[in-house]
Parts: sequence; C-alpha cells; structure tokens
Amino acid sequence: MRTSYAVGLDVGGTRIAAGLVERKGRIVKESKTLTPKGGPFGVVDAIIDAIEEVSASVHPSEIAGIGMGLPAQIDFYRQTVEFCTNLPLAGVDMRSLVMSRVKHSVTIDNDGNTAALGESRFGAAKGAKDFVMVTLGTGVGGGVFVGGQLFRGYRGLAGEIGHMIVELDGPECPCGAPGHLEAYVARPAIIRQGRAAAETFKGAGIKRLAGDDIERISAEVVINAANTGDEEGVRIMAEIGRVLGEALVGIVSLLNPQLIVVGGGIGESCPIVVERAAAIIGEHALAGRRDVHLVTAELGNDAGVVGAAALAFDEHDSREGLQR
Amino acid sequence: MRTSYAVGLDVGGTRIAAGLVERKGRIVKESKTLTPKGGPFGVVDAIIDAIEEVSASVHPSEIAGIGMGLPAQIDFYRQTVEFCTNLPLAGVDMRSLVMSRVKHSVTIDNDGNTAALGESRFGAAKGAKDFVMVTLGTGVGGGVFVGGQLFRGYRGLAGEIGHMIVELDGPECPCGAPGHLEAYVARPAIIRQGRAAAETFKGAGIKRLAGDDIERISAEVVINAANTGDEEGVRIMAEIGRVLGEALVGIVSLLNPQLIVVGGGIGESCPIVVERAAAIIGEHALAGRRDVHLVTAELGNDAGVVGAAALAFDEHDSREGLQR
Repeated sequence: MRTSYAVGLDVGGTRIAAGLVERKGRIVKESKTLTPKGGPFGVVDAIIDAIEEVSASVHPSEIAGIGMGLPAQIDFYRQTVEFCTNLPLAGVDMRSLVMSRVKHSVTIDNDGNTAALGESRFGAAKGAKDFVMVTLGTGVGGGVFVGGQLFRGYRGLAGEIGHMIVELDGPECPCGAPGHLEAYVARPAIIRQGRAAAETFKGAGIKRLAGDDIERISAEVVINAANTGDEEGVRIMAEIGRVLGEALVGIVSLLNPQLIVVGGGIGESCPIVVERAAAIIGEHALAGRRDVHLVTAELGNDAGVVGAAALAFDEHDSREGLQR
Repeated sequence: MRTSYAVGLDVGGTRIAAGLVERKGRIVKESKTLTPKGGPFGVVDAIIDAIEEVSASVHPSEIAGIGMGLPAQIDFYRQTVEFCTNLPLAGVDMRSLVMSRVKHSVTIDNDGNTAALGESRFGAAKGAKDFVMVTLGTGVGGGVFVGGQLFRGYRGLAGEIGHMIVELDGPECPCGAPGHLEAYVARPAIIRQGRAAAETFKGAGIKRLAGDDIERISAEVVINAANTGDEEGVRIMAEIGRVLGEALVGIVSLLNPQLIVVGGGIGESCPIVVERAAAIIGEHALAGRRDVHLVTAELGNDAGVVGAAALAFDEHDSREGLQR
C-alpha cells in the first residue's frame, strides 16, 4: 500500500528532532527535545514520546515507517550500533527497543548518511548520482552516493569521512588516531583556535564578539567574526577550508564525484570554508576532476529528519516491492 | 557468439606486455617489448606489432576484443586519455588509433583499474565484491570495486589512490600538489631514502648490496636489504608501510571494503610493508572496520595483461548481451 507519511528522527548528542514527513519531503509536524542524559532507556523514552507526538494526528496505516539517524557507526545490514561517542548507545539494539513500542517498522542509520539521503532527495544534491556529503559540526561525518544509492560498503559502515588522515603524527582525533580530518575542521578545533587567537592582540575582534569572555568563544563566534571580515576569524576559517580542501582532493581522486555537498552546520554558515576548499580542489586535484561542484547543503537542520524519513519510505517501498 | 580469447595489453612507461588470454585467465601466448621513445605513433606501432604477434595463431572470429591498460588517467566513458605522466599520450585518441589498424573492438582503461580487474577475476580478490586495489610501483595507483564492479565515478576517472593527502605541506607529489601518498611510498621515495641512508654509517648494508655505488641503489636494493633484515632497510620499508597504512585507514573509513589488495611490484616483494600497514589499520581504523583483510596481489606482472583481457571480454559480452 502506498503510504503518505514517514516519521524521521535525528537523534543528536544534544537534541532529538522528530518530524512527520510527506513523501515529497515536507515536514507537516515537528518536535524537538533535549536528549536525556544517562543511559539508553531515557533516550528511547524520549524517542517514543517524539514519535507519538508527531504521528498522533494520522492513522497508523498511513505511516510507512520510522527512520532514525544516530550519531554513531551503524552496521546498516545488521541494524546494530557499533560505536557511539556522544551517547551511550554502543551495542544497544536501538532498533528493537524502539520497534517493540511502536506499531511501525524502524530503520536506523548513521546521521551523516541520513543527511546525505535528505540532500539527495530534496536538497542540494537532487538529481546527482555520484556525490559525497561532508558534515562539519561537533564531529565530521558524511555519506557517499554511488549510482544514485547510498554506498554502504562491506559491513554497512562506509561514509566516515572524518577519519581520513591529513597529517602524519598530527593532533589526536577523538577516535584516538593521529592527524585525522576531524581533529582539524570540527567545532572543537575552531573553538581552540578562536580562544588561542583571543589571547593575542590580533584576536581582539573575536574576543569582543564573545563579550570579552574567552570561555564564551564558540565555533559560531569565530564564524561570525570571519563572516564580518575580522582578520583572525578569516584566517582561522580559511585554514579550516584549506585542510578540508586537501582532504577533498583525495576523495575526488578516489571517487571522482560530480558534486560535493558541505553541511553539518559549519559548512552552511561560513562561505569562506567552502570557497577556500573549492580553490584548493581547483589547484591540487588531478586534471579532469577539477570541475567537481562544491556546494553548501540546502536543508540545514531539517536534513536529518527529512533524510531519516526518506530512509523509512525506501525501506517500506522495497519491502512492498514498490519502485521509488 | 561466445568467443574464446581476448588480447590484453599492459602499456607501461618502460615496457609493453601483451597476451592472448583465455576466458579463464590463462595466457596462451605472450609478448614483451620495450616501449619506444618519442611520440605516440611509435607506441601505437609497437602495440599493433604486439597484438599481431600474440593473436597470429587464432582466427579473428575467436577473439572477443582488445583491452589496454595505460599508465594514464582515462575518462572511461568517453574512452579518452586525459593525462599521462610517463608517456606522451595525453589527448591522444589511443583507442581509435589502435582500432583503425586491427579487426577488433578496443577498450582502454587506467592500468590500476585493469590490475584490479585481473586480481578480482583471477587473483587475490576472487569473489570479493567490495575491495580496493593499491599498486605501489613507479607511482601509486589502484582501483575500487563496488558491488562486484569497477567503480568509475562521474567521469570514469575514479581510483587514483596515490593522490590522497597524507601530510599537509608535505613534499611535492609528481602531480604538483603537496603531501600526497605517492610522494611517500612509490619507488622514487624508496630510492631517495635508501641513498640518504647509504651516506651514513648505518646504511652500510644497503650500500654494499648496490656494489658500494650509491647511484645504483634502486627500490629493489632497499627492499632486498629490508627482506634480509638490514636495520636501515627495515626502517625505511616499515615507514613506507606506516604511511600506506595511515592512508588506508582513511579508505577503510570512507569505503568499508572487505579486502585491500596491495600490488604493483613493491607490494608483493616486501612483506614488511603489508605487515606494517595491516598493524596500523588494526591500531587506527574505527571499530568494526579493523577486520578488513590486507593481502598481496597474486598475479604479479600478469595482472595488467589478464585484467586488460578481462576488460575486453566484459565489453564484448555486454555488447552481445551475454552474462558473465
């Protein structure tokens, strides 16, 4: 049966967003709540509440299913959480825990993948068959599309763009390995550089934007400084763009995508990052690949919810033998 | 019609190898010749001679076609040579030049891709659907298999593994960009390190293996030294393995392959490289991906010829609507 809605959930370390989503990607009802601290059961309770809240007004038979993006490494084929830094979900059978309490089928995926799926279906990557999504936020994630499908890899773990080397013996990444992209271009690196700059005369502009309180310097403060032309802010964010660009040169060499979408919060909010990364690709990518388009994500915070809903629709339709 | 043979060519900067190959990968007749210096026409003449030599004994109707691996970036869809470092073939329509002089259809591809195809069909990657081939030789190349097929990318240029960053501001790669894998692990880097070592007391073992002539220190001399336990040789090759391993951690994060095949000459001849790279993956890859198998190529120098022939069979069969 052709259902009209899916519930998409974007489960983050800080916030859980849920939406009742139409097939065309429109969110008709939305819910946002803080992610409960403590064990996985509180998180599951909050997820169930959010699902009930957004789906209360429609009949269960109209709902294709529930899709959930988690900030975790998901073995997509087995639907298990392998590893999770920001939430206590590693090894927890999230899918079954949620599914035992709702009337619908549940599908889980890595949040970089759901964001990529959202942008692919309804955003900046509409119509692109071979593209890569990079999300720059608290961490660095992403998703790889091959031939119009999310590329899963052997165990369904593909798409972890943040854990590619950019510098041998570089600073330690949250994953424990040295010199990965995530250690250079995610929120903590921006904060660290912003605060270091604010200790100096040159960083006065950044410090002022944080009310002269260095502890209040967030990534957003540094990005604001950069976007208003503050020299140190521009320098920091241009360097973020350079490192991102050098890593993307490698992805372009390996995968020759037609398009790269940069999102995750930082990607959309700081044009300097994308401009600088595009310039580096133009300079350093091999001949024939420099025409790759680098664009910013279009769905913003909705990408996760809309993408998770698209996942639920896809799973429903493939179960029912329907073509998209 | 079900043909019995294909001609595979491995066109290198130094040597052209050709073979008449059966469907099961057996080379029934082989030819090797030095690659002519000068313009592309001499190269084409040598290719035609090689094709005639290996195919003289069979009727043209028994030959499915001709496959050629070139040390070049090939736009596979348009069958054009985009860029070529070691031979003057950039922009040359190699496929048409050869096809105008033989009775068969000709298909060209990057030599990393043909090697991957060879290992996939007849070598170390038999049966693997999602694997990555890395060739360590004069340069670093490779091929990416996704779902049992060579992954081509948007313009057919995918698989250039050598041009991924390993160190921001690292030494210049032959492609002109800084810090790419190729600048660290290909033959010239090994030679440079071997010669530098031989200038010191510690490098006496390497120097001795080259007849006390530093200019005669090749990559093979350094590998020999390492394989016989010479301390400096081991140190140099273990470092090659470390850098390769860190780059492969990124590929494992991005693509989650089940298998990585290391070949290209250096990969097969120096176990230290593969052992060290495997140890780095075990240490630094994300959870759930560490079980990737790292193995050495099995076809050696034949991979290119056999893989190019497999390409010709595939093209023939897809034209004729045959299933493999």
